[in-house]
Amino acid sequence: MLGWLKQYRRGLLAGDISAGIVVAMMMIPQGMAYAMVAGVPPVAGIYASILPPLIYAVFGTSMTQSVGPMAIISLMTAAALGPLAVAGSGLYTVLAAQLALLSGVVLLACGLLRIGFLANFFSRPVMSGFTIGSAIVIAWGQVSTLAGADLPRFHVPSLMLGGASLALLLLARAYLAPLLRLAGMNPAAADIGARLAPMAVVIGATVLVAWLDLNVRTTGAVPAGLPRLNMAISNAHWRSLLQPALLIGFMIFLISMSAAQALALKRQEKLHSNFELIGLGAANIGSALSGGFPVTGSMSRSAVNFSAGANTPLASVITAALLAIALVAPTGWLALLPLPTLAATIIVAVLGMLELDTLRTALRYDRGDALALVATAAGVLAMGVEAGVVIGVVLSMGTLIWRASRPHIAVLGRIAGTEHFRNIERHSGGTAPGLLLLRIDAGLFFGNVEAVNQRIEEELAARPATRDLVLVLSAVNAIDTSALFGLTELNQMLRHRGIGLHLAEVKGPVMDRLNASDLLARLNGKIYLSTAMAWDELAGKA
Amino acid sequence: MLGWLKQYRRGLLAGDISAGIVVAMMMIPQGMAYAMVAGVPPVAGIYASILPPLIYAVFGTSMTQSVGPMAIISLMTAAALGPLAVAGSGLYTVLAAQLALLSGVVLLACGLLRIGFLANFFSRPVMSGFTIGSAIVIAWGQVSTLAGADLPRFHVPSLMLGGASLALLLLARAYLAPLLRLAGMNPAAADIGARLAPMAVVIGATVLVAWLDLNVRTTGAVPAGLPRLNMAISNAHWRSLLQPALLIGFMIFLISMSAAQALALKRQEKLHSNFELIGLGAANIGSALSGGFPVTGSMSRSAVNFSAGANTPLASVITAALLAIALVAPTGWLALLPLPTLAATIIVAVLGMLELDTLRTALRYDRGDALALVATAAGVLAMGVEAGVVIGVVLSMGTLIWRASRPHIAVLGRIAGTEHFRNIERHSGGTAPGLLLLRIDAGLFFGNVEAVNQRIEEELAARPATRDLVLVLSAVNAIDTSALFGLTELNQMLRHRGIGLHLAEVKGPVMDRLNASDLLARLNGKIYLSTAMAWDELAGKA
Repeated sequence: MLGWLKQYRRGLLAGDISAGIVVAMMMIPQGMAYAMVAGVPPVAGIYASILPPLIYAVFGTSMTQSVGPMAIISLMTAAALGPLAVAGSGLYTVLAAQLALLSGVVLLACGLLRIGFLANFFSRPVMSGFTIGSAIVIAWGQVSTLAGADLPRFHVPSLMLGGASLALLLLARAYLAPLLRLAGMNPAAADIGARLAPMAVVIGATVLVAWLDLNVRTTGAVPAGLPRLNMAISNAHWRSLLQPALLIGFMIFLISMSAAQALALKRQEKLHSNFELIGLGAANIGSALSGGFPVTGSMSRSAVNFSAGANTPLASVITAALLAIALVAPTGWLALLPLPTLAATIIVAVLGMLELDTLRTALRYDRGDALALVATAAGVLAMGVEAGVVIGVVLSMGTLIWRASRPHIAVLGRIAGTEHFRNIERHSGGTAPGLLLLRIDAGLFFGNVEAVNQRIEEELAARPATRDLVLVLSAVNAIDTSALFGLTELNQMLRHRGIGLHLAEVKGPVMDRLNASDLLARLNGKIYLSTAMAWDELAGKA
Repeated sequence: MLGWLKQYRRGLLAGDISAGIVVAMMMIPQGMAYAMVAGVPPVAGIYASILPPLIYAVFGTSMTQSVGPMAIISLMTAAALGPLAVAGSGLYTVLAAQLALLSGVVLLACGLLRIGFLANFFSRPVMSGFTIGSAIVIAWGQVSTLAGADLPRFHVPSLMLGGASLALLLLARAYLAPLLRLAGMNPAAADIGARLAPMAVVIGATVLVAWLDLNVRTTGAVPAGLPRLNMAISNAHWRSLLQPALLIGFMIFLISMSAAQALALKRQEKLHSNFELIGLGAANIGSALSGGFPVTGSMSRSAVNFSAGANTPLASVITAALLAIALVAPTGWLALLPLPTLAATIIVAVLGMLELDTLRTALRYDRGDALALVATAAGVLAMGVEAGVVIGVVLSMGTLIWRASRPHIAVLGRIAGTEHFRNIERHSGGTAPGLLLLRIDAGLFFGNVEAVNQRIEEELAARPATRDLVLVLSAVNAIDTSALFGLTELNQMLRHRGIGLHLAEVKGPVMDRLNASDLLARLNGKIYLSTAMAWDELAGKA
């Protein structure tokens, strides 16, 4: 906690200041835009960008993480609150903060219970599918704001302004960085310059709207001054907010961890997932107390923070200070940001989340993972973002259990004249009558125990003369309680049929475990250090 | 399908007939008792014991499975229907059949989609915890029926009859089989005789009630004749029944598979989980059409069927025929079965499910599994049987992911003068400056990819002079798409830092997969067949 502050060196300051300024300039339009996605007043997006990063700077472990509003979490907030209140109403704003409070408590509790391993419930293909599905839902949700009316109708000035903003932002994304480099900027500065295009387009559009007196919807009056302490709560809604808070807390953690992990790898940092949970939990409670809504560490914003030079959380402190100053300074101009342009910035931002690289790799590498990705994206589109989280967990676990239910098991034969034993299907190995050597290439656990027993039964049925079965456990890294019962039943069955059951090449940690069970005492056979020793003793018997 | 009929031999007939008779005698009180648990009229328990086993005989794959009402599934039925209708009402009975129909369709669909691997989502400790929790809930639910009034009140004749029945059944369970053996019966026959104690106690109690004209509640008029075709449906309830049907379908499959697997191991049979799904699905649709409620294969009943001599599903056909005859014959006596005695049979039956052997083993063998068991049982008690299923899946997966998040990784050293490499913490092995050999003892997948990368980062941080990292993959049985990305990122990061990344002892199937990816082409190092080869080439470099 605050370890970075104790070791702070002067040399780090320049980077932190430049990153702090760049991210603050990014944060103003982005915070307001993601507040729109969440259905709360735009100023709440700025509130949610001040206290949460300050709190995260105290409790979090990632040096360059930028905590604040994020598109997918805002979408989930809107999905959770939509059935409970009218977007933009006072109750809705109260519930948004209450949802941040509950999500924060959930995260904090998970951190204190040290169950950070929960982040491992989502596979990457499933996360990619979830992101793609959410991005499409978010972009689609902004189309009517961009067009200034519900489809298929449209409002000409809004559509023209929104369309022009969209075109400019897309062009900037594709060509601005190369152009700035051609103009002599160094590559890092050019990249950061390109990231500020949304701010520039929003300012340009605001000026244009004021100048031409265009009749388009704008953000509306933003109250001046720092956020007040928010203690408003709707006691009637605790129950209905609990399940969304669990799902949102889970996704806050997942999204923040994947951003932090990508950065930690670059910076050779060590993350502590349980401290991250505490940091994110405290940040969300802070968001609730300052009238915000659920926040998380964002991959795209943190990447900008990192490349703009952030060395420590001081960068986030500077960002927060600048945003606070913007609220204390005259805020009249913030009321004039045209909504169609903000919608365009959202659409372009989430288009960046539509990366198909994971799908492309999975299609070539593992069809099951590719299918899980597509099914999760389809699930989000068809059943919504909350169901999508559950679908994602089920599909991650489903692919895992499905693979586990087809363990690789090899019949071993002896390579003539050696002490080596190999899969007889891949190599020509000799077998001995009455002796069956099976190598199980998977840790034994509840997901494959029946499949392993069935396969053993099949191999025995194919070799009715078998008198001794040796399980070669060189690749078995663990045996859980379910598999221990499976082995015990196999042992009983083989004893009943007069077949010996032997184990060979049992790993140290596995053997330590088995010594605490009854299996070894009851084993209808012996334990061999090596397959060769088992062969020497058993192959001669028949 | 019906393969057993084509190969039927005369020698099998005697066993099938005796098992058919024994199970029919067991089924009459048990079917009516489990109908009580489910909240439907007692006769529905007999209906559910006729058509379902006949249909399972055609589609199922287990030779000795006995399909019909089962305590836990009846409890789940009551839990699902309780909020929708008043137990015993006409609507309730319609919904019970409709729930069987939906569960059957769910099972059938899973079978046709070939997703029988779903049975692997529950670990044994979790199943044991679920069973213990359910048994307590069921037994507790029968106490008021046994006492003849809602607690803490009681009705003296009911309590005396119920208490006496309970005492007799407990004594019979403990001493009847040994007594029969002492009386000269062979052990198998003595065991079966003891299993018929509930039928004997029920008949005795019925006679006693009629003789003494005791004022206790009885089953009430049972309509004579075979079940009629039931097509009654409540269209308003499809939606509310869907989620219970999914959970009940899952548990029907799980319970039936564990019974069938235990028997298959004894009989050296091969089960086909997808055909089992189809058989159970069709059986439940049959139960719905004949006015029954959800059914499954029961461990205890199937064990009796097996030990009474059943060789093929003909035993179940005979059971069904006998039950049909009982309904066609005068059924007046079936109306007089005293409910306190039936409640006693239920309590004794579910006490048999309270086995603590799994807990005892898990406590010694694996505390995590023991905790999952206790938490699942507590979950069923605190939050009900439906939530218990979800809790069970989450805890099974949770223990799995938790273990995966702590992979075993060993730093290898060379045993002097040999080609052998061992964990330097367990053996004294030599290392070479600049060369780090890490053996990963776990398949790489989304559940451990970050933990592995973190651990590698730690080992590198502890050895800043490292120029070459060799990952020894001799125990890595699979690498999924998430782990492929993890390795790719590791490779980029190491390239950036000027450290070589090499792989050694990659297994055949893993190598086949990796060849379909970009990783090998981009690898900042080489692939070595053996650790010794990597050592010879890399240890000399520094």
